[in-house]
Amino acid sequence: MESPTRFELLAELQGTLARRGRLHTPHAVIETPVFMPVGTQATVKTLSPEEVSTIGARIILSNTYHLHLRPGEEIVAGAGGLHRFMNWPHAVLTDSGGFQVFSLASMRKITEAGVEFRSHISGEKRFLGPEESIHVQNALGADIIMAFDECPPYPAERDYVLQSLQRTLRWARRSQAAHERSDEQALFGIVQGGMAADLRREAAVAMTEMDFPGYAVGGLSVGEPKPLMHDMLEVTTPLLPRDKPRYLMGVGAPDDLFEGVLRGIDMFDCVLPTRIARNGTVFTANGKAVLRNAQYARDYLPLDEDCDCYVCRHYSRAYIRHLLKAEETFGIRLTSYHNVSFLVNLMDKIRLSIENGSLLAFRQHFYDRYGYNG
Amino acid sequence: MESPTRFELLAELQGTLARRGRLHTPHAVIETPVFMPVGTQATVKTLSPEEVSTIGARIILSNTYHLHLRPGEEIVAGAGGLHRFMNWPHAVLTDSGGFQVFSLASMRKITEAGVEFRSHISGEKRFLGPEESIHVQNALGADIIMAFDECPPYPAERDYVLQSLQRTLRWARRSQAAHERSDEQALFGIVQGGMAADLRREAAVAMTEMDFPGYAVGGLSVGEPKPLMHDMLEVTTPLLPRDKPRYLMGVGAPDDLFEGVLRGIDMFDCVLPTRIARNGTVFTANGKAVLRNAQYARDYLPLDEDCDCYVCRHYSRAYIRHLLKAEETFGIRLTSYHNVSFLVNLMDKIRLSIENGSLLAFRQHFYDRYGYNG
Repeated sequence: MESPTRFELLAELQGTLARRGRLHTPHAVIETPVFMPVGTQATVKTLSPEEVSTIGARIILSNTYHLHLRPGEEIVAGAGGLHRFMNWPHAVLTDSGGFQVFSLASMRKITEAGVEFRSHISGEKRFLGPEESIHVQNALGADIIMAFDECPPYPAERDYVLQSLQRTLRWARRSQAAHERSDEQALFGIVQGGMAADLRREAAVAMTEMDFPGYAVGGLSVGEPKPLMHDMLEVTTPLLPRDKPRYLMGVGAPDDLFEGVLRGIDMFDCVLPTRIARNGTVFTANGKAVLRNAQYARDYLPLDEDCDCYVCRHYSRAYIRHLLKAEETFGIRLTSYHNVSFLVNLMDKIRLSIENGSLLAFRQHFYDRYGYNG
Repeated sequence: MESPTRFELLAELQGTLARRGRLHTPHAVIETPVFMPVGTQATVKTLSPEEVSTIGARIILSNTYHLHLRPGEEIVAGAGGLHRFMNWPHAVLTDSGGFQVFSLASMRKITEAGVEFRSHISGEKRFLGPEESIHVQNALGADIIMAFDECPPYPAERDYVLQSLQRTLRWARRSQAAHERSDEQALFGIVQGGMAADLRREAAVAMTEMDFPGYAVGGLSVGEPKPLMHDMLEVTTPLLPRDKPRYLMGVGAPDDLFEGVLRGIDMFDCVLPTRIARNGTVFTANGKAVLRNAQYARDYLPLDEDCDCYVCRHYSRAYIRHLLKAEETFGIRLTSYHNVSFLVNLMDKIRLSIENGSLLAFRQHFYDRYGYNG
């Protein structure tokens, strides 16, 4: 069966692993590297689909665990799938639910079959294994779906990580076997292996043998030091097929985008921009700004003087600070819009800098202003 | 001094007091009768100014009491006034703060000078009288501002209402004297008088003598039966100048729009559409619908099958119910958008029905479907 997605490798930046590509999916053509905003519960928090599209995003991530529990995949399927349910005409990627089961649910019991857990919403007992996850994702109908995996905690004993990895590889095969819409949805495999270089290599090789149309690197940014995450990427991506997209799951701080791209990553997703926005924190070229601080009370400048997004063209820090203090939801809507724009625009510039060979210089320039020193 | 607003009386509906007019203000030309959405804290809750404009509104109300306490009028003035602060290019009306002082603040002490109260936000002691209210409203810079008044509670002793009315009339004169931007902002007077027909008449005559560019009817919809509100309107509006706009403050349920228009009202404002939206209740041609009810879980119809607003064109009841249950702010944004659209669209139809003489038949048709029987 031919994959419903196709990856074009357009250019590689000499001396780095950075790549410029184009991912064709049933609902959108996506320029890579790409940052994917997260719409956990079938909505990118506070934003309309038109706004997410105006920002420039053409693919978003939605969470299988959340949608399975509420409203339930059959209600989404009844609307004609996730795209129509949420009025998003572009591409969607759903995760497998594995990570959320481990991070949100209680009373988890892992067996070879899958994971028994209690819903963090209703408290009731539920079960999710490879077949269940793929069944849910087939019903949701995203362009890209993910194999069911276990994301081991950090730190973890090597023995546990090894056993977990072997199980994740078996679950990946069962995910492939369970997939009933491979003509419409591309199933990506996930490379686990904790913080052990040899296990990461083993996972990359084993997953590649299973021949997925794309590969994710999972289990990173789980509390480990950043240099360790970078090491794991460096041992993993060179072993993945050059002509397939590579997705670093749940990672997306500005520096992570640079460092991931330089290590061969094509796709990123992260709740960071919308999560910090709801606390009133915004990205700016000069680093993060905490808008509730009194210094912004009479500051009529835009959130980021270098940004030309809708928010920065029309609203002042003083106004947005007022909305946040007054607990008006329009305030977190404006900070969310700006933060998602910031990462999408940053990725636009990263793509351009791969094309014209200036990525390393651009990274240095960005870090200098942002106040990031590795 | 000529008023910065001008009211054109375009047509009157024979056999009723209903009028079709056009109010020219510095920032917008407003077709009347008009429903004005409320942006208490310099934002129509959950909506962007572009959305409020797309819905068709050209004038919104903002609350002087709230903006005085937070962020403070000097911060709004520093941005260039309320229009620029909130990115709303059309007309704004600010109330006097009187009503909010009585309904929200604690420890109120009324003297001839004004009202001493404790802020409902900080608890600190504040003072608002006619001069202070007008000073704040001059700084906010709305197109239409209101004289400082007292809105007596319901029920209230006749003696109290009489004394309160006399004080409100004196405050109205002091409001006129304190107004420093009468070339840019039109100051409207407010007719009080509680539920006593003779006091309402006395107030209407006395306010008319003060020659305001527009007149509000205040102190209604404060708990009295609707027929009593209608009686008070019927004794008041005929005594107000025919060539000046008449504004019924804080009133705006669908039936109130019909009944107010039929009694000579040109302007309405109400928090009802956005307030009930935040509880998940929406207006439909067939009456109000409570979206959290289980009956809507698999209902893929639009909120109101007769509505062609953005929300009804793109989203289902099932999706919006999911967002409300999941506590996603996009849910209350969609219900707010629809409810404000519903009242703005209803007023469009009311204006048309005044023009073509069908207002009474339209009211009957609307009430029959909506399930309203007076």
